[in-house]
Amino acid sequence: MVLRILMPFLTGSPRVTGKRPLFCIILGNTMISTVAGISGAGPTPEKTLLTPNLDAELVMNGRITSMPIKPNTPTGCPTPASITRAMMELTGITPIFINAGLKNPLAVPHIDAIGQAANDPRSGDAVPSARQLVSHGKIIGKMLSQAGDLLVLGECVPGGTTTALCVLRALGYPATVSSSYAQNPVSQKEAICREALRGILSEKVTDPEEIIKRVGDPMIAVAAGIGLGYTGTLVLAGGTQMLAVCAVIKGMNGRIPSVSTTVFVRDDSSANVQELAAMLGVSMYYVDPGFGKLGHEGLARYCHGEVKEGTGAGGAMFLAAVMGYSPEEIQKKIFETVSGYS
Amino acid sequence: MVLRILMPFLTGSPRVTGKRPLFCIILGNTMISTVAGISGAGPTPEKTLLTPNLDAELVMNGRITSMPIKPNTPTGCPTPASITRAMMELTGITPIFINAGLKNPLAVPHIDAIGQAANDPRSGDAVPSARQLVSHGKIIGKMLSQAGDLLVLGECVPGGTTTALCVLRALGYPATVSSSYAQNPVSQKEAICREALRGILSEKVTDPEEIIKRVGDPMIAVAAGIGLGYTGTLVLAGGTQMLAVCAVIKGMNGRIPSVSTTVFVRDDSSANVQELAAMLGVSMYYVDPGFGKLGHEGLARYCHGEVKEGTGAGGAMFLAAVMGYSPEEIQKKIFETVSGYS
Repeated sequence: MVLRILMPFLTGSPRVTGKRPLFCIILGNTMISTVAGISGAGPTPEKTLLTPNLDAELVMNGRITSMPIKPNTPTGCPTPASITRAMMELTGITPIFINAGLKNPLAVPHIDAIGQAANDPRSGDAVPSARQLVSHGKIIGKMLSQAGDLLVLGECVPGGTTTALCVLRALGYPATVSSSYAQNPVSQKEAICREALRGILSEKVTDPEEIIKRVGDPMIAVAAGIGLGYTGTLVLAGGTQMLAVCAVIKGMNGRIPSVSTTVFVRDDSSANVQELAAMLGVSMYYVDPGFGKLGHEGLARYCHGEVKEGTGAGGAMFLAAVMGYSPEEIQKKIFETVSGYS
Repeated sequence: MVLRILMPFLTGSPRVTGKRPLFCIILGNTMISTVAGISGAGPTPEKTLLTPNLDAELVMNGRITSMPIKPNTPTGCPTPASITRAMMELTGITPIFINAGLKNPLAVPHIDAIGQAANDPRSGDAVPSARQLVSHGKIIGKMLSQAGDLLVLGECVPGGTTTALCVLRALGYPATVSSSYAQNPVSQKEAICREALRGILSEKVTDPEEIIKRVGDPMIAVAAGIGLGYTGTLVLAGGTQMLAVCAVIKGMNGRIPSVSTTVFVRDDSSANVQELAAMLGVSMYYVDPGFGKLGHEGLARYCHGEVKEGTGAGGAMFLAAVMGYSPEEIQKKIFETVSGYS
């Protein structure tokens, strides 16, 4: 008991009372993920583009059948999608995927927001259809409002912390963002951001939709739209990328959602998650799944800064906890699930 | 009052008790609609392929912006989609579109079941991925089960009564199907059906999924899957096409849904809707919107056998009625909406 008080499973005392929860994951690509060194979410820079597609298969079906690969990161950790899959099995929830803009076709049924993969923001507009995507996000938010009173909304966008950095900085926040790498490629991200933001700064662009268009990604556009259109309790599941979504919603005078993520993101000293959340007025819920003590080497490496979060993993564990599953049930299910894949 | 008893707005005493209704429309294409004379759902045979896309725009946004056209049929009647749009405005429901397999990209956000337009069943398999589409339909049914306890599910498939005829006949039902034309091109449909069913009859194929694969359309596959996966109260919105879906669900030992449509379909003497429904054990709910007395020439022509139904129009009026809107409110809203488009 003393241990549980010192290290609670869930920090942030959520007053989440939804009786009809939905769990959605927005998928998107940005060509930034194909720049060598930026994203650890795939075996090669080019193959990071496929990660959302493979994650969706795993979370929906419990296996990847479109390619002969295992759901492990290049360094051998279980992917966050396998944690999300474990929580879907535990809770019996059918996840809903939203294609905000992907390079490759999805193999599982999904909501199509009719977007495209983002361009590299250094070579022209990143998301030319940003305004339409926000508006499509609002429609999807209305659809989902009819469908449930609690929405936990995750994301999978390789390279997305770099676009989040661009959007947050463009909106005036002194952000530093997290990374799926244990060693965050901070100076490379900063260099991209500096170059991408040149036009925005010289033209003094402040409109959030214009900022997404210039330097964002399709997930940020669709998630912001959902935030503006959804009428129930919205919990964004993710780290600094979801804080960028909150910043856009705030800039458009919307109701600020809560954000749920892992302690691994909170404790990333290369990012200023807690400071940003406070500036934005976002209630944060941090999940500590105790991966260091489960006897699984790959999961333990999350505690040393690898992977950290992704594909709604933090939010899926958060949802299981607020639905009443105990930390022990959650940990047991994750251990069994990822062991089955190794 | 006597008039209301003699000519009720809704026939079939529905015991529909859902508190969280959803309204979905499945969109699909079959190349059969491009055969001259088969489908009245478009200005030319080739352009019938676009009708589901334009209907979705109209129902979702209240206007068609992707092309400079009005929502009227080639003979000048208001399209059934404009009736469905009126009911969305009246009830405040956000419709959910499901792309089962379209030739052209949709302009509105939707659920993608990852199918393709059906081939002409006389020249090879109509729906090669039928089994996968049924399975995707089941997943979508599970998603929608979380989202509501009453699902009214319409369709828009130009040429779909011909594929429905093929599927019903292949399953052994003595079906005759309805038409959007006042003069049903019965002998042409029969000729296509005879040719399409040759292989099925000689090989004695009875498996419903194999029958969809050979001669059906993607809507029938996805709707049947939803019927098998959805756990709440399911009301299919449409005429003979939805009875084909019921026949498939029955053949796969699923729970038979109810069907809601207009009296114009029931009263189509070229089709045997009531007989088929009785054979299948389907509860039918017929809506009589009293179009003859609204003072609108185009709507009045529905009473003389034009258009009859489509894009969930019958089901949308049914849903408004079970939600408590009066026949007068429903008629007034339809009159105002279609007058705004003419």
